[in-house]
Amino acid sequence: MKIDVLSIFPEMFDPLRQSMIGKAIEKGIIDFKVTDFRDFTTNKQKHVDDVVYGGGAGMLLMPQPIFDAMTHVQAENNGDKGHVILVDPAGRKFDHKVAKELAGFDHLTFIAGHYEGYDNRIRHLVDDEISLGDYVLTGGELASMVIIDATVRFLGNVLGNAESAEDDSFQNGLLEEPQYTRPADFRGMKVPEVLTNGDHEKIRKWRLQASLRRTYARRPDLLEKRSFTKEELDLLDDIKYK
Amino acid sequence: MKIDVLSIFPEMFDPLRQSMIGKAIEKGIIDFKVTDFRDFTTNKQKHVDDVVYGGGAGMLLMPQPIFDAMTHVQAENNGDKGHVILVDPAGRKFDHKVAKELAGFDHLTFIAGHYEGYDNRIRHLVDDEISLGDYVLTGGELASMVIIDATVRFLGNVLGNAESAEDDSFQNGLLEEPQYTRPADFRGMKVPEVLTNGDHEKIRKWRLQASLRRTYARRPDLLEKRSFTKEELDLLDDIKYK
Repeated sequence: MKIDVLSIFPEMFDPLRQSMIGKAIEKGIIDFKVTDFRDFTTNKQKHVDDVVYGGGAGMLLMPQPIFDAMTHVQAENNGDKGHVILVDPAGRKFDHKVAKELAGFDHLTFIAGHYEGYDNRIRHLVDDEISLGDYVLTGGELASMVIIDATVRFLGNVLGNAESAEDDSFQNGLLEEPQYTRPADFRGMKVPEVLTNGDHEKIRKWRLQASLRRTYARRPDLLEKRSFTKEELDLLDDIKYK
Repeated sequence: MKIDVLSIFPEMFDPLRQSMIGKAIEKGIIDFKVTDFRDFTTNKQKHVDDVVYGGGAGMLLMPQPIFDAMTHVQAENNGDKGHVILVDPAGRKFDHKVAKELAGFDHLTFIAGHYEGYDNRIRHLVDDEISLGDYVLTGGELASMVIIDATVRFLGNVLGNAESAEDDSFQNGLLEEPQYTRPADFRGMKVPEVLTNGDHEKIRKWRLQASLRRTYARRPDLLEKRSFTKEELDLLDDIKYK
């Protein structure tokens, strides 16, 4: 997958080059490039922003440097600008389904704004507006990295262990059950005994019920969207009525 | 505000030292420190993770290094470990209200997990579990940075322009209206004329209606939570019925 980012803070994306995403870049699964759109300014001062029409606080990113940086990205990719994503609070909400959908594209291009906002005409370049949630960030860099990180996990061969992405929270519509590693007794805090006995059927059942219990307590909305097996319904009855 | 982070990837937090957050650190508004909990391992190999009790793919972060790193943070801060936040999909959903709430603490401490997950006993250290949304990341580093970024914006003197945080999306329960900067005509795409005429009352009204229109089209759920002035109701009627 080719991933392009337009940003005036290319160094902010260094964290992606670490950890699992970094390994995917090394393996050639991802070709990741950040283009600094400040390089495409046509004014002497290399300004990327200007005052707001109609008055008001703050500055807005001008359209020209971003349009010209996009033309450059397109030229570098045989005329393909990719699926262009703008991270904006007015966009559709990002979740694991959107991540899976984005993982199906060959080429994603992010416009990472900064400062107060951007000229609305930038939307002419955009295929997809995505929101991380109902809050405001100082820039689109962190938000773009979050989307890239969650998306890239769905590509084959990125996670060390192929099973892991399927085991995660939300893959089966439930929150994960509590998990434990050694030691069995850490400063008086003990691992539930069932997990240490090696009875695989009991462990499976305990985990399923713990997962249902946590979801019921913390995110009952997830249960509403989901269909259940007979076993799950019986376990849920235990949780609700006993 | 003191902000501590426990992480095995301290360099991943470098982006926070740039941009507005970096300026807040320079000005002394924020005292930001990352503690590498790998330094607190007691095994020769400096391993921070171990296999999952009951079997399964992946590894979990062990409790010991994180508990001991927390004791260290506490000792560094006159016995105060701060308001301890674990970023986890099972936590309460992060939004601008949570950001504002977190901005009221003197000391925040984030536990940024990585890899598959962590031993559940780590929750004994935690005051607050927060979820960025219904998706899974390769680690808690990016998620912690997003929360820090959105929170720090609410501290006085962090944003260059004092008005900006109040002008943002969500501050008044609506999405922002489209905004424009120069030039008035960019490659045939024009700024709405009303914004260029200097009639402040018309501009105010246009902006309010554009904001209501965008919210109505994209996030009608935000309108349900909100009360309206008479003017807003009239403008909304125009949007809905004309």
